[in-house]
Amino acid sequence: MAKVYIIGAGPGDPELITVKAIKLVESADVVVYDRLIPVDILKHAKEGAELIYVGKEPGRHVMEQGEINELLLRKALEGKVVIRLHGGDPFIFGRGFEECQYLIKNGVDCEVVPGVTSAIAAPEQYLVPILLRGVSSSVAFVTGREDPGKGFKEVDFRKLAGSVGTIVILMGASEACRIAVELIQGGLDSKTPVAVITRAYMSDSKIQFTTLGEMANCGITVENPSVIVVGKSVKLSPLYKDSASP
Amino acid sequence: MAKVYIIGAGPGDPELITVKAIKLVESADVVVYDRLIPVDILKHAKEGAELIYVGKEPGRHVMEQGEINELLLRKALEGKVVIRLHGGDPFIFGRGFEECQYLIKNGVDCEVVPGVTSAIAAPEQYLVPILLRGVSSSVAFVTGREDPGKGFKEVDFRKLAGSVGTIVILMGASEACRIAVELIQGGLDSKTPVAVITRAYMSDSKIQFTTLGEMANCGITVENPSVIVVGKSVKLSPLYKDSASP
Repeated sequence: MAKVYIIGAGPGDPELITVKAIKLVESADVVVYDRLIPVDILKHAKEGAELIYVGKEPGRHVMEQGEINELLLRKALEGKVVIRLHGGDPFIFGRGFEECQYLIKNGVDCEVVPGVTSAIAAPEQYLVPILLRGVSSSVAFVTGREDPGKGFKEVDFRKLAGSVGTIVILMGASEACRIAVELIQGGLDSKTPVAVITRAYMSDSKIQFTTLGEMANCGITVENPSVIVVGKSVKLSPLYKDSASP
Repeated sequence: MAKVYIIGAGPGDPELITVKAIKLVESADVVVYDRLIPVDILKHAKEGAELIYVGKEPGRHVMEQGEINELLLRKALEGKVVIRLHGGDPFIFGRGFEECQYLIKNGVDCEVVPGVTSAIAAPEQYLVPILLRGVSSSVAFVTGREDPGKGFKEVDFRKLAGSVGTIVILMGASEACRIAVELIQGGLDSKTPVAVITRAYMSDSKIQFTTLGEMANCGITVENPSVIVVGKSVKLSPLYKDSASP
């Protein structure tokens, strides 16, 4: 049975990819890859392998999801070893599951190779704990962007506010002020510390510390891509600086 | 400045470890390792490297956390290349952050090398989506075990019930019935689908599907270690079987 590997390529550092992913890149006839994967790993592809870029950027898609599904299916049915590289992990706000679903429905097997997600790795780069005994026993990963097709808001930041110790927001750059307002309306203290990690594991990565109140006032610029961490444990990072002090 | 690497060794499959982690194992003078790491990766250690097991099992610790901290510090101050291998990811219910904190306080640098956490990888092994457009835009990772030292329950499963699309519970084997009862009390439908993945990526891994109601009645045996996934998206796994049907 034909099979496609749906692979997480990690947060951006070419060494933060799994051994299994590298082996599969080496063996692939067709590599279908995303924006935000560390392009250095494509060097592991064998000579003559087809490298197909299907990246999506905010507001601009090289290829629609339906076309990507078709492409994976067609190449697999041609008998080729097909791998699909996602930035981070394929099931954490990627479309890896939909790709698997489509392939399986059409008689092609699918295996997921998990990757390191930036939701976890970005805070770690700057030693920001998201879970910590005595401080936070739960963390929620949420998207700042909603699917416009859904017609309702699934992430209710007001409800989320009091229900978990730490909130990690991905793809929240353009919605950061609104999200902070809603978290405060939901009951979080406006002094709650916030870390914004931008371009984790890239050469120009950075961290900014702020508070929910400051973010609610749009007092901080959140660039894309950023991981936003909200919760008391942020303050315990050895790198933490109070945004109020110089 | 002396430095210790705090490394995630992934969910159990020796190939689901990062390239960076393998390189660090190869270069280390001292490898301090946990229970639940894939022991095969220790084969990469150089000749003469000290391999020190400090695993914790439920109810039985080979070494207390304070002793582990001391050990890492002492070996680093001796000028050795010291790495600390955690199962999964070091900041996801591991003690990696506390280790970093202790080292930095004592003048030793610390770098975290993220790993693939079983919270994400275990559902992926069985094609169970935890986030899915139109179904779930948020996921919470929580521990089923609380820190007895805290004196209060930080994870309020009743509150958590309505606030996120999917709930992933780690270390919840012994508390599964109580957690399910609390989630239902919090407003989740007793028919909410549940997946229990046990020993992910081990040769004897397995998945069981059930419902919150069945779990609340202790109608399912949850072995240790398991990852419990609660939410509507569980039902969309191509492997899903209704627990009521044969």
